[in-house]
Amino acid sequence: MPTKTCSVGLVGFGTIGAGVARILLENADQLRAKTGITIILKRICDLDITTDRGVAVSEGVLTTSLDDVIDDPEIEVVIELVGGLTVAKQIVLRAVAAGKSVVTANKALLAEEGRELYQAAHERGVPIAFEASVGGGIPVIAALRDGLIANDIQSIIGIVNGTCNYILTRMAAEGARYDDVLADAQRLGYAEADPALDVGGGDSAHKLAILAALGFAGDFGYDEIHVEGIQATDPIDIAYARELGYTLKLLAIGKRFGDELELRVHPTLLPDEHPLASVHDVFNAVCIRGSAVGDTMFYGRGAGQMPTASAVVADLVDILLGKAKHTFDRLRLFPGRTESLRVRPIGEVETRYYLRFAALDHPGVLARIAGEFGDHDISIASVMQKERHATQAVPLVILTHQATEAKLRRALAAIEPQGVTEGPPVVIRVEGEHE
Amino acid sequence: MPTKTCSVGLVGFGTIGAGVARILLENADQLRAKTGITIILKRICDLDITTDRGVAVSEGVLTTSLDDVIDDPEIEVVIELVGGLTVAKQIVLRAVAAGKSVVTANKALLAEEGRELYQAAHERGVPIAFEASVGGGIPVIAALRDGLIANDIQSIIGIVNGTCNYILTRMAAEGARYDDVLADAQRLGYAEADPALDVGGGDSAHKLAILAALGFAGDFGYDEIHVEGIQATDPIDIAYARELGYTLKLLAIGKRFGDELELRVHPTLLPDEHPLASVHDVFNAVCIRGSAVGDTMFYGRGAGQMPTASAVVADLVDILLGKAKHTFDRLRLFPGRTESLRVRPIGEVETRYYLRFAALDHPGVLARIAGEFGDHDISIASVMQKERHATQAVPLVILTHQATEAKLRRALAAIEPQGVTEGPPVVIRVEGEHE
Repeated sequence: MPTKTCSVGLVGFGTIGAGVARILLENADQLRAKTGITIILKRICDLDITTDRGVAVSEGVLTTSLDDVIDDPEIEVVIELVGGLTVAKQIVLRAVAAGKSVVTANKALLAEEGRELYQAAHERGVPIAFEASVGGGIPVIAALRDGLIANDIQSIIGIVNGTCNYILTRMAAEGARYDDVLADAQRLGYAEADPALDVGGGDSAHKLAILAALGFAGDFGYDEIHVEGIQATDPIDIAYARELGYTLKLLAIGKRFGDELELRVHPTLLPDEHPLASVHDVFNAVCIRGSAVGDTMFYGRGAGQMPTASAVVADLVDILLGKAKHTFDRLRLFPGRTESLRVRPIGEVETRYYLRFAALDHPGVLARIAGEFGDHDISIASVMQKERHATQAVPLVILTHQATEAKLRRALAAIEPQGVTEGPPVVIRVEGEHE
Repeated sequence: MPTKTCSVGLVGFGTIGAGVARILLENADQLRAKTGITIILKRICDLDITTDRGVAVSEGVLTTSLDDVIDDPEIEVVIELVGGLTVAKQIVLRAVAAGKSVVTANKALLAEEGRELYQAAHERGVPIAFEASVGGGIPVIAALRDGLIANDIQSIIGIVNGTCNYILTRMAAEGARYDDVLADAQRLGYAEADPALDVGGGDSAHKLAILAALGFAGDFGYDEIHVEGIQATDPIDIAYARELGYTLKLLAIGKRFGDELELRVHPTLLPDEHPLASVHDVFNAVCIRGSAVGDTMFYGRGAGQMPTASAVVADLVDILLGKAKHTFDRLRLFPGRTESLRVRPIGEVETRYYLRFAALDHPGVLARIAGEFGDHDISIASVMQKERHATQAVPLVILTHQATEAKLRRALAAIEPQGVTEGPPVVIRVEGEHE
């Protein structure tokens, strides 16, 4: 087999960067055997080049100057692992302008600035590869891009944030409170000191933006995604839902209906037998429904040093083998190649709902509530009234059939002034059908 | 985007062939939008060109002569969907000799004759693509080949036969007998009139051979795979295993330990929380463990017209975009590129075991059996003795810790002549650890 030598530059020597360096240095022989390419990690750029990352890097490789990477004509590929928006964007744009291919794991950057970066790369004739931006080492980007190319993608539904899944898994297993589990997750390193981007759903929305752009070819804005986090989750709802045969997950949901899209991230109840319902702890999984293939699911560790590094190196090999350039320019991510799809406002989204009212212990309360649902054309699928306590409101759990969010909100607005409930109900959307 | 036109020939116009034709004809515009290629299905060859397959084929496309495909210089790719060994092998070899790329879904052919075919294609400089041979439309071949390229593959464990999974799912749900469910599955079209290749494990072994060759780069013979089917499955063992927290599946198992491989297909108990344990009905799933990525799983419909056609068309696009040739020649499937790995005989394979003895109702029976296990250095993990009936043998279920098969067989041979059990025990291997 003919062999060749290729040089690459790594920008950002944090956890993932060290993992990538480890694979490239320690597995160089295996990679050469598999690809016929000797990959030279020529430069590693970071502001901090003194901390030991546990990887043996040759002298002269580390640099604090981005110019050493960008201006080196031998470096064919720049791996951007800086994260964040401003600096990372400049790194990618400079690399592209210098005619270098780019690998990035930066989901925030691609979700919010992807169009501009893809377009710049497209015009310069170099690929941007981003398998590592979603689902860690799970090759779900490749599946959407290549493996399922014969399909119209109908839906993409995923558990794409390991921190939230870990918290919800433990809340379900232990009946524990959100705050307590979050604190524990932070102690164990499964949640950041500032967990807002994870638990608020923003990270999941970033990943949904990337998957949906690729799968649906729609030119939508990141801010068109409806986002709710898990911060308000009460373990009592997890317990009640379990009695009804449902599991609570934070889902990223993209669906296509003709020329319209639904794009939303929120806590969601799934029937226990749904494949995503048994995805636990920090694991991620993405279900993709295609017109020919039907339902598929891709499962694995969605984050972490080596899983993410695995995806970065796969992208790098794809570029070095000359395959990425055959792929990237044909993606429907560029002006003139995208489709004009309208994102439905959340009010138009139709789902089933889990509702928990704090019902006052009066006769006829259920009749009043059920009556309002009937008047608003919302069918009730099941009702669960928990035992009554003399002195306090009674939990009344209602599962509805399909209804638009706007219709539901109107019904709830009509129930509220009747004085039969205490405060607004808990509302959790339900996806998936019971088998 | 520049566009080009490519002609392909389809050989074998059965269920899958009709599905491929349907995608190429009915989705031509979408495929052109995604790939920049106008794909012309120029010839369809089959012995039967009169039966209506529900696809509108232009006049002059159908032919009974393979020469019309092979001798047509415009046809760049031959899609082999004839199935079986002899004729299919000649079709592939002739296509390759004529310099045409090949797409095939023929798992028996690749498992048993793959080395020769891969080598012929390699020498001629054309790729053979075979995503559709395993897992229907699930892009698991691409994952092993590309997405996980940065990993040493440590294990490949899959449910890769939908017929067996359907039968076992129904036996578990209904407590039904194997024969009854098989008959029902045949009536419903989920099992062939001659189900031997499916229920006997041969089909799963074919798929394991393909996955293991790709994942482990070992040059082993198909007949080195240890194969047991599901025909002897008794619903009582499914029920007892469930009490212990286990689910019965027919698994294809490939593991690498240094320079040795385990390759086996047999009914297997999995802890209920294992991701494969909740793969039901005709669905397939393959778990791949990689050195960097950890545990991944790929899930979907493993058979059927459109899922399989989805994979065939993905392979076709990969070839037409010029990507497959970058990939195929670098696969470790050819002499000089494979590794010398020894396949462990089943006696050397170490697993845990579920054993069900028909114990005679005498005092000291458990002590005798447990004593023999102790003497043979096999640890017992748990014991379940079901209630006694005065007139018959008592079911005694034992779960062991890890032991080699040879050691287990010696212990069972020592127990047999002691006259405390009736007949040989049921033995089912156990994979996966309880969390």
